[in-house]
Amino acid sequence: MAAGNRTVRLARRPQGEPVAADWTIADEPVAAPGPNQVLVEVTALSVDPAMRGWLDDVASYLPPVALGEVMRAIGTGVVLRSAHHRFPVGSQVHGMLGVQRLATPDVRGLTLVDPSLGSARDYLGVLGQTGLTAYFGLFEIGRPRAGDTVVVSAAAGAVGSVVGQLARLAGCRVVGIAGGPDKCAYVVDDLGFHAAIDYRNEDVATALATSCPDGVDVFFDNVGGDVLDATLLHLARGARVVLCGAISQYNSVDGYAGPANYWQLLVRRATMQGFLVFDFTSQYSTARARLAAWQRDGELVGTETVVEGRVDDFPEVLLRLFRGDNRGKLVLSLGAPGE
Amino acid sequence: MAAGNRTVRLARRPQGEPVAADWTIADEPVAAPGPNQVLVEVTALSVDPAMRGWLDDVASYLPPVALGEVMRAIGTGVVLRSAHHRFPVGSQVHGMLGVQRLATPDVRGLTLVDPSLGSARDYLGVLGQTGLTAYFGLFEIGRPRAGDTVVVSAAAGAVGSVVGQLARLAGCRVVGIAGGPDKCAYVVDDLGFHAAIDYRNEDVATALATSCPDGVDVFFDNVGGDVLDATLLHLARGARVVLCGAISQYNSVDGYAGPANYWQLLVRRATMQGFLVFDFTSQYSTARARLAAWQRDGELVGTETVVEGRVDDFPEVLLRLFRGDNRGKLVLSLGAPGE
Repeated sequence: MAAGNRTVRLARRPQGEPVAADWTIADEPVAAPGPNQVLVEVTALSVDPAMRGWLDDVASYLPPVALGEVMRAIGTGVVLRSAHHRFPVGSQVHGMLGVQRLATPDVRGLTLVDPSLGSARDYLGVLGQTGLTAYFGLFEIGRPRAGDTVVVSAAAGAVGSVVGQLARLAGCRVVGIAGGPDKCAYVVDDLGFHAAIDYRNEDVATALATSCPDGVDVFFDNVGGDVLDATLLHLARGARVVLCGAISQYNSVDGYAGPANYWQLLVRRATMQGFLVFDFTSQYSTARARLAAWQRDGELVGTETVVEGRVDDFPEVLLRLFRGDNRGKLVLSLGAPGE
Repeated sequence: MAAGNRTVRLARRPQGEPVAADWTIADEPVAAPGPNQVLVEVTALSVDPAMRGWLDDVASYLPPVALGEVMRAIGTGVVLRSAHHRFPVGSQVHGMLGVQRLATPDVRGLTLVDPSLGSARDYLGVLGQTGLTAYFGLFEIGRPRAGDTVVVSAAAGAVGSVVGQLARLAGCRVVGIAGGPDKCAYVVDDLGFHAAIDYRNEDVATALATSCPDGVDVFFDNVGGDVLDATLLHLARGARVVLCGAISQYNSVDGYAGPANYWQLLVRRATMQGFLVFDFTSQYSTARARLAAWQRDGELVGTETVVEGRVDDFPEVLLRLFRGDNRGKLVLSLGAPGE
């Protein structure tokens, strides 16, 4: 166990892309776990686009991270000290642990890693918020039918890569939108998408017209901006647009660009709907079992970009998301306990 | 019966607000009705914001009005010549008659006015596309529950004035957004809305915060633009945004302004959905009977601005919609047959 707790706290609110001065990195005394808390050594952190939204002082689905607060982050870790029978010392856990080496989470927000389903690392990806977001967003909001054309943006990203595979399993034709030929080849060759559009080198609207001749029945959007606008022009009648992310807009200092083609929702009698995975907690265990079974059968492949590092590396690793140079789930691995 | 047929045809596509040179007005020979057609003298025309969209050469839910074509318009009239048993000479009809004095519509698109339900004029308003649009948009897309807060834009307009009354009948709290104190007073005092916001003299976002303390459950939007953006900031969780119109955008020469606050659909787990009344034709007669019953009982009041004029006045009357100086349904009345 580390002698002190290394933490990354929010020092000030970023303007646009976060910079080093927005964070305070420090060694702090290790907190003693209170009632209903356990002491956890964090072994890996999930680095997610949604984190950028948590830094802004605007009304959203969660309160913003307060100035001076440890940065909010989902992670996995190992229990070091516990008075709770469900989380004995040595057990692996998953939950909102924060960007720090030693966390004292409330057990009511913790999930015990079930090794029969997958590894602790899987709980950051296919079996965690990532996989669950893909699962509920696609099946509950997108409601694909076999034979539908499903388009996914940020198709090689954490959520997008799972969405496309789930849509394939549901009998849909799947078209991914991703940045660069490598990512496009990856989603087609390795993940079984039927086609991919390289938004950096192709005109998305033209490519959609070619690859989706009958229109787009479900658009699962992680990106917003121009990609959303282009796809709105190609909706099939009765289409469902699932709002999951808007990574192209998160660092905008002038506010979001609204989708100028929103009117196509009327022309096509279509629906645009937002959702949050937290609203489906009562169904998490069912979903996780299904995701684990598909993974076990080789039908669903987790994709990860793992950065081996320290808590201190978090601010730099976060920026990779906005440069688009990660594939799949971006994980900051902090090493085994005691390392 | 008039000696010739006075027509308004589309001469060129308007840039922004239509001008006189966009139209050709002429006397033409009267067409002889073909098989399945009847000859109708048009007595009144419905003047609708949607007409502006029909003039643009863009993909939409109906093909654009072709250059040289008689302007598309819903109207009422009297049958002058007929070989069809369901539409005898002298009967009153309602349908897509066009901006002309003597039409030869296909009977398969005609509706016989049922005097037990209301007048021919009612078929342009509460019992016509206007009332049906309000009915299906609110009940099928908005799905209000008793106690919900329902906000309607263009609340004193043709559709908006009906939507608000139907929402009141459904047990909702109804807030209208309209331009000017007279319209605001009208929807509250005469139509039974619970509150009104004057977008010309109030800050809509601030006024919504006051008048909708629990958020907006259903927003029925006829306007788009700033009003849509302001309302998106005040959605309740699970809200439904019904896209019916975007009159603030129809004359834009730079394309529509997209709703920058669309991201609130995710934050609030809300839905934005477009619809077209044509998709509900199989339910028209049921809806019309209900609307007629409410009207008969005094629960639902039709609102009309009737301009007495000639076919030639159509281009000028159309512009009134964009100046906001009509209240309720805007009708161009052409007088009784033979006048």
